[in-house]
Amino acid sequence: MYSPECVEVDAEFARLLMSRFILPLLSLLALSIGGCTTPRPLASWADSAPRDRIITFVARTTTSGSPDFVPPHERIAVFDNDGTLWAEQPAYAQLFFAIDRIKAMAPRHPAWRDTEPFKSIIAGDIEAALSGGEQSVLQIIAATHSGMTTDEFERHVQDWVATARHPQTGRLFTEMVYLPMIELLAYLREHGFRTYIVSGGGVEFIRPWSQAVYGIPPEQVIGSSVKTRFELRDGTPVLVKLPDLGSLDDKEGKPININLQIGRRPIAAFGNSDGDLAMLQWTAARDGESLCMLIHHNDAGREWAYDRTSPIGKLDRALDEAIRREWMIVSMKDDWTQVFRER
Amino acid sequence: MYSPECVEVDAEFARLLMSRFILPLLSLLALSIGGCTTPRPLASWADSAPRDRIITFVARTTTSGSPDFVPPHERIAVFDNDGTLWAEQPAYAQLFFAIDRIKAMAPRHPAWRDTEPFKSIIAGDIEAALSGGEQSVLQIIAATHSGMTTDEFERHVQDWVATARHPQTGRLFTEMVYLPMIELLAYLREHGFRTYIVSGGGVEFIRPWSQAVYGIPPEQVIGSSVKTRFELRDGTPVLVKLPDLGSLDDKEGKPININLQIGRRPIAAFGNSDGDLAMLQWTAARDGESLCMLIHHNDAGREWAYDRTSPIGKLDRALDEAIRREWMIVSMKDDWTQVFRER
Repeated sequence: MYSPECVEVDAEFARLLMSRFILPLLSLLALSIGGCTTPRPLASWADSAPRDRIITFVARTTTSGSPDFVPPHERIAVFDNDGTLWAEQPAYAQLFFAIDRIKAMAPRHPAWRDTEPFKSIIAGDIEAALSGGEQSVLQIIAATHSGMTTDEFERHVQDWVATARHPQTGRLFTEMVYLPMIELLAYLREHGFRTYIVSGGGVEFIRPWSQAVYGIPPEQVIGSSVKTRFELRDGTPVLVKLPDLGSLDDKEGKPININLQIGRRPIAAFGNSDGDLAMLQWTAARDGESLCMLIHHNDAGREWAYDRTSPIGKLDRALDEAIRREWMIVSMKDDWTQVFRER
Repeated sequence: MYSPECVEVDAEFARLLMSRFILPLLSLLALSIGGCTTPRPLASWADSAPRDRIITFVARTTTSGSPDFVPPHERIAVFDNDGTLWAEQPAYAQLFFAIDRIKAMAPRHPAWRDTEPFKSIIAGDIEAALSGGEQSVLQIIAATHSGMTTDEFERHVQDWVATARHPQTGRLFTEMVYLPMIELLAYLREHGFRTYIVSGGGVEFIRPWSQAVYGIPPEQVIGSSVKTRFELRDGTPVLVKLPDLGSLDDKEGKPININLQIGRRPIAAFGNSDGDLAMLQWTAARDGESLCMLIHHNDAGREWAYDRTSPIGKLDRALDEAIRREWMIVSMKDDWTQVFRER
């Protein structure tokens, strides 16, 4: 017979037993048997204010009984991608992807040999190709991000990301991720946070590798998107990517899409440019504790140094607001002991 | 010192210990202490084909070693809401919400006393109010679903859903949910599925109560939406709901939004009308096992009987396709021993 009461009692009892006894026991057990001490959390972060702020925030929001305790399902942390989780100089990785796609597609598009910006790309003159400004970029994106099914596009991204290398460092683009941020993502997840990417980049450009590189599953990636059309091909449904912008997930678009797709207010937000300002404002305005951080690219030696006047990743208004509101500003130079993984 | 290897070993060890020993032990323990036998799963489902199909599908996709095994993160189950999880007759609950909002807002809108469809709603003549067809409905929705912040709208929904009652049964609308579907949601989650709502209804109309009523958190609710505008009011950011449709999450819009917001193909889909056909086709077309089900409203005694010619929840093309593809068709009359919870 069906008896909801006792089922609930059991579940409650199991939960209690699990949280109070089993889990603590397990961690002890695991450590002792593993036979090594706990590694220093956030190992690549210097002993400076940002690391302290992160650890304090996590302790205050995850320690039961703390006045600032936040239940796990509300522990949403949102991260910009370009310039926050991986490098965005000298240009966004997605632009290099698009350029490589143009070259790969060129044989099937003879007309491109005489049409800019394609002509210059095929000739290897990227600067000339981009001289047309936004219009050129939109043409490049439209040609490479529409006209195929979502499955086909995913394969293009997977093939590219497995082999494409950064023009200046020669590293795979997936090796251009910031080790301290990878540690931060893991640290937050270990404390019951769900980590989301909220990027101006294309959502379908990031999803194919976000789990492997960041430990972030596709359903926790929010990004810009083109419209798609549902089609039956020989009775099999496909989604065809169209050359029409669906959503630009930048600036005000970030809190708008966070509300649309998560439906919860984040309690922590991490960005590096003016495009992240609205997302940080939205996060900071929640009732109760929040953590807002800006990565400041001031390390020309180990990465790049740019902020208020950079055409890519411009950090100007957001920097002023971070100073005014005492948001954490992370100095890549001083607050990170290491930027990229050792090769 | 930082030693990833042994940390991994520990985590692995802990996972193993947890899955092989602790969890099984716990469930036994919980049951014995609870002092009652496990309830029959899907208790309100008759011993007929649909229940068998569900249980077989779950066993095949969740038993490790099974050729059809699907890892937990891929176990996405999508559910239509109106007519699939709760009743949609004589009209969508959201329309009753909108009508009640018009009445509540009327004092602050004197002009409505002489303007249709508001005039008729205030006079209590819903039929006349809706005689304008789609145009009237759009006016009613625009007036009640835009012009306020998302936080204000959420409060309106919470207040309404706590007290509003179905015009024919006198039950709270949240008591018009189908008990067998509540059991199905719980059964799937117990087996590692993540349950999503993919509704033609408004996402911000469903989220405020989906956790309490369905056990489905806001981030797993996909629905129709209006555009919103990010605004700073005295320095505090708000999202203002606009009278422009953002996304209509119906028909082809369902797989389109599933791809946009989840980025994974569901392995199980449940609907009741032609508006769910594309979502079921999209799910059925995945590589490997999938479960597609249609709820057939054929129980005039306990609920309502309608399908091919109903203006609400029309089930015509989807019914033909379900028969052709041997998707499971659930007869509310024969396959559910109980429709609603006892009061």
